Order: sequence, then C-alpha cells, then structure tokens
Amino acid sequence: MRNIKITVQYNGGKYCGWQSQPDSLGIQGAIENAYYEITKEKIKVIGSGRTDSGVHALGQVANFTTESSIDVDKIPNALNSKLSKDISIVDAEEVDVDFHARYSAKRKCYRYMIYNNRYRNPIVSGVSYQVKYGLDFDKMKIESKSLIGTYDFKGFMSSGSQVKSTVRTIYDVRLHKNEDMIVLEIEGNGFLYNMVRIIVGTLVDIGRGRIAEPLSDVIESKDRGRAGHTAPACGLFLKKVFY
Amino acid sequence: MRNIKITVQYNGGKYCGWQSQPDSLGIQGAIENAYYEITKEKIKVIGSGRTDSGVHALGQVANFTTESSIDVDKIPNALNSKLSKDISIVDAEEVDVDFHARYSAKRKCYRYMIYNNRYRNPIVSGVSYQVKYGLDFDKMKIESKSLIGTYDFKGFMSSGSQVKSTVRTIYDVRLHKNEDMIVLEIEGNGFLYNMVRIIVGTLVDIGRGRIAEPLSDVIESKDRGRAGHTAPACGLFLKKVFY
Repeated sequence: MRNIKITVQYNGGKYCGWQSQPDSLGIQGAIENAYYEITKEKIKVIGSGRTDSGVHALGQVANFTTESSIDVDKIPNALNSKLSKDISIVDAEEVDVDFHARYSAKRKCYRYMIYNNRYRNPIVSGVSYQVKYGLDFDKMKIESKSLIGTYDFKGFMSSGSQVKSTVRTIYDVRLHKNEDMIVLEIEGNGFLYNMVRIIVGTLVDIGRGRIAEPLSDVIESKDRGRAGHTAPACGLFLKKVFY
Repeated sequence: MRNIKITVQYNGGKYCGWQSQPDSLGIQGAIENAYYEITKEKIKVIGSGRTDSGVHALGQVANFTTESSIDVDKIPNALNSKLSKDISIVDAEEVDVDFHARYSAKRKCYRYMIYNNRYRNPIVSGVSYQVKYGLDFDKMKIESKSLIGTYDFKGFMSSGSQVKSTVRTIYDVRLHKNEDMIVLEIEGNGFLYNMVRIIVGTLVDIGRGRIAEPLSDVIESKDRGRAGHTAPACGLFLKKVFY
C-alpha cells in the first residue's frame, strides 16, 4: 500500500465545496472519480481541511492510499486529463504511511482578494470580493497587525461548528494594495469556521469606518456581534498548507 | 446631440470579439442593445479598435452620439444593469462632438499574461496563456527592448488585414515576472493585426530557445516566417487607450 500526497488547485465557483454533498459533487469526490477512471480503484481522498462552497485553492493538500503501481510523476497529468478544467493537480509525491493531510498539517496560509472599485471588473469578479465604498487601506493594514499572536478568536467564528478550543495562533498577516486590488494573506496554526472571511469583513468594516473600535478590542471581546460581516467565499483562496 | 465617451472592461472569452458577426453578438452590439433597453434609442457604438474573439479589455474606449438627456454619471450603472457580467462600463463622460474613439486615439497599451507552469492553473486559465516549457525570462526581457522604436513590423502581422503602412512606433515594453506569471505590457502608436500576439509568441520562442537569432534581426527581416507563433487570444488585454 502506498500513501500519495497531492497538491490541488481549484476554482471553487461551481462546486459545493471540498466535500461532496448528497446531491452535489465536491472537489474531493471529483478527484476520487477521476482516479477510479484511471485505475478502477476506489480511493478515499483526505484533504487538509474542507473548503466551503465557492472557496478556491492554490495549494490545497490531500492524501490517499492506493494499491496501484502507477508512477507517481504521472499522477498529475493522468488525473488532470479526467478532471474538469476547474480543478488541477499540480504535484504528487509518495509519502510515509503516517502522513495524514489533515492531522499532519502544522500551518495554513490563506489569501483573500478585495476589489475596491464602484464598478464591477469582469476579469476578477469570480475570484474577488467587490467593495464599492472607499476604504482606508492604511488603517486596515495597521489594525490587521493586532491579529498576530495567540488569542481566543471565538468572536471570529460562525455558529454551526463544534471545536474543543477557539484559541488559535496567527503567525503573520500581510496586506498589499495594487491599483484597486487589496490582497490579504494570513498564516496561522489553524482557522475556525469562517474565521478568515469574518476577519476580512471586519477589516473592511474598519476601512469603511463602520467599526470604530480597535481590532484588538474586538478580539478581546470574543463577541461575534462586535466583529464585522462575513466576507463572501468567492474572494478566498487556500494558498498553502505547511507540514 | 451629445457625444458620450465610455470606458469598457470585458472578459472576451465568450464573445466573438468587439464587433458583432452575422450570427453572433459582439461587445459593441451588447452595449448598443443595453442602451436601447434603457432609452429606446438606437445608437452606434464606435470602439477605439476591434478586439478579436477571446481578447479581453481593461480599458477599451468607445463613443456614441445620443439624443437622450440621461445623466452621464448614471450611464455606467444603467448599462451594467442590462449587460452580462462579462462586460462592465467603468466610466462615462460627455466629450466634444469631434471626439472619435478610433480616429482620435494617439497611443494604446496592451497587456499579455503568460502562465509558465507545466500544470494548468484553474484560477488564471481563462485569462492567460499557459506555456509548459521552461522559459529564459532574462533573455526574453533583454530581447524585448529591441521592439522599442519606429520599425516596419510587417513580419509581425497576420495576413488578412489591409493597411497602408506597416510602420509602427513602440514607445515602451515592460516584462515582469511574479512567481509563475510573466506579464508583458507594450505601448505603441498603433498595432497591426495580431501584432501583440505574434510579438508574444516570438518572445516565448526566444525564451524556449526555438528562435536563436536576435529579435532585432527578426524585425529587420520583415519576414513573418522568421517571427514566432501567434500566442492565443485568451492572454491578451487591451489595457488603455490614450487620447
């Protein structure tokens, strides 16, 4: 039995998310189906985490065990030939049997793209969140630094998830602006349900002046009601998973 | 009668180009139809130039004359509400009756995106040209400077166009690389049919080592056979038109 680690990119716009739903195919299921087409073997693909409907990935990591003797270097092109153009396998390697895409993950990096213009842009519309209002980028950038550290991010979690602890460590937050595009990158040891999207919504509300208190106070309050709106899925990318 | 100048962005992937064809709607026709829906007036939209099927725009400029008294500031949102999401009007202003989007244009800037990776990327696949082979970016960058100046670019024109002169002036060429994306921007007083796409194909062939002679020699030869392949439409953007 071999354990294969793959790196996956996808445009999540047309998918119900990483995980398949009873009536809808997820990215995971699409990869399992593609592998079956090639090898006639039913595998179970384990992702580093589930991404929601509409969320994209530049570097999702998954693993699966297989009995097939397929050359690992041929796996990306073989799978890509069976997958829709919205999904791309960009790396495959054989790893130790202990490797588990979810439990072995040490850190994750997400990217979020905000298109700040009053008019829609048809080139980036499916992969960014259009904010029509003026944003104080410098203020957003300064405030974002309050996220770095180990805190209880209970106020930055959507209901519906069950976790033992809401304490997470954020190692780095970077905000860049290039013309009308604001790009946020955030790295942490783990993220609560919708945490990145609520962080982005809060920073946008700060940039718009709708939230006046410092972000550090919002974090300390642990109160979802004091944090901002949940930014839409279409601007979010799972960029990299570290092991 | 008022003369209205508009700036248009579009994702050209699903269109037959700027100009409508007998059996297929172009961007121009889509805007004319949208304006008719709002005002019941039939207008003729004049673009700065035709873009081919699949070519995108970040700053196409067009103008039209109208009898309507519609507030010019309301034109972008009014048109956008009727247009498909692939097209966006991002500016409108009233201009002198002499203004003609095509004849008044002094300079144009195009952008071309090359995604240099052996595996497809589903986020950028519709808006870039995937080159799977290794490219010598530094060589491409150095050679690209030979394009700057006034030359007879006859070797960089696809057949099927009738022009009086094939002499054009290129004011600037910029090549940047960001991770796997190579972005070319080129500014000139005008471009021949498929000229930017042939320039890009030639630079890719130079970067791959398929063309060994200096780009200046290729230009001087005026021989289409010595220039490179025509890069696909999906990587090309009309970025800006100068008046």
